[in-house]
Amino acid sequence: MKLNVSERIDLLYANNIKIIQSAEVFSFSLDAVLLADFAQPPRKSSGKIVDLCAGNGAVALFLSDKTSAEISAVEIQPRLADMARRSVELNHLEHQITVLPIAAQKIFKLIPKDSVDVVTCNPPYFADLPESKKNPNQFLALARHEIAIKLEEVIAISSGLLKMKGKLFMIHRPERFGELLQLLSKYRLAINQIRLIYPKANKPANMILIEAIKDGSQAGIKFLPPVTVYNQAGNYTAAIKELLYGK
Amino acid sequence: MKLNVSERIDLLYANNIKIIQSAEVFSFSLDAVLLADFAQPPRKSSGKIVDLCAGNGAVALFLSDKTSAEISAVEIQPRLADMARRSVELNHLEHQITVLPIAAQKIFKLIPKDSVDVVTCNPPYFADLPESKKNPNQFLALARHEIAIKLEEVIAISSGLLKMKGKLFMIHRPERFGELLQLLSKYRLAINQIRLIYPKANKPANMILIEAIKDGSQAGIKFLPPVTVYNQAGNYTAAIKELLYGK
Repeated sequence: MKLNVSERIDLLYANNIKIIQSAEVFSFSLDAVLLADFAQPPRKSSGKIVDLCAGNGAVALFLSDKTSAEISAVEIQPRLADMARRSVELNHLEHQITVLPIAAQKIFKLIPKDSVDVVTCNPPYFADLPESKKNPNQFLALARHEIAIKLEEVIAISSGLLKMKGKLFMIHRPERFGELLQLLSKYRLAINQIRLIYPKANKPANMILIEAIKDGSQAGIKFLPPVTVYNQAGNYTAAIKELLYGK
Repeated sequence: MKLNVSERIDLLYANNIKIIQSAEVFSFSLDAVLLADFAQPPRKSSGKIVDLCAGNGAVALFLSDKTSAEISAVEIQPRLADMARRSVELNHLEHQITVLPIAAQKIFKLIPKDSVDVVTCNPPYFADLPESKKNPNQFLALARHEIAIKLEEVIAISSGLLKMKGKLFMIHRPERFGELLQLLSKYRLAINQIRLIYPKANKPANMILIEAIKDGSQAGIKFLPPVTVYNQAGNYTAAIKELLYGK
């Protein structure tokens, strides 16, 4: 496997997935691991999964360990999409994962509406407000700020892709939760389950995992057991160690 | 203090509050302790607090330990309101707590609109659906099922009572969270903070504490650190022991 300058290969020990990383352009973080763990891919091998805002393909790669369904990873940045494609090769997953180096807004040229069982998405977290301090690194800025895609577009596209009763699994910041609720409802997505991620036991949550069902029932949101990332000494908790390094 | 048949006096050790209980008609539960702990009463002694669906007065009594503001406890059931009134006497809190033995729907005859700093409420949790199995004990049925008051009324009345930027603190079941969100928004209440209560670390949440601000900003819900009630051995966690028995 040819690595470009600044690239390295990391291993997620829990599922033995190798992934091409680059501190210069993008490295997957715990968010991707948490999202892949939270998502429930379709069981049947005829199932279809789309990962939007795929970055270097971390979520798609980690998900492949849980399903034999087909996964399309959609990433607008050519350099990241190329890293994702090479990581797919590195793990011999070409039969299962296809990297689509296009804007999510153009996905319906390649994937029909109402055809997907599960959409996963770890979108840019921060609104592209003029006053927001953007990362001077354009690769990271696009991954973190809503420059190339806004939350409303992510949700509209997710809903468009999903079959009736298909599921969206998304990770986001709790600060955007109110907005998320309104947008999900606007695009026919009903929240079914929520898992909150707390950095430490005595701190407010800093991530929220959401499962929403297209045309699902509005009744009954289940708040799953929370995950705490660090113990008081600042080390990973047993739950996080298991996600990263396996049992 | 004259106790009626079936009544007993319990003590909340954490704040030395005595409270008249009756298994026959109503006993406060952990919900009231959690709500009183979560609520942030106004600091100034000129502040006004209303506790709706007050039952035997547990929330109002526990809150008195945190503030010198005036507290009105509103309870429709005469027998419960009488228990609450006698508990107020028992704790020598007549100068601070007034028990109003009326339906919450009639509160505006006694308390002006837009005049209250904080509303607390531990409402009936269960919709009064015909198919729901009601408690044959009418006292408990009224406390647990939406017979005398519906969630929408509770929220409309809370909003009506509150001053602009006044706060509602409510405890409810996560299953009703979607409905709560819609109703709070309908009545100009913006959720500011949420605390989830988990029965055990590995179980879904079974209670949700909500702080909502009248005419508050819709942006930025904070999920406070969660509370877990029982450890794996089935005993109260340290956090709950502290709430019940003090440090």
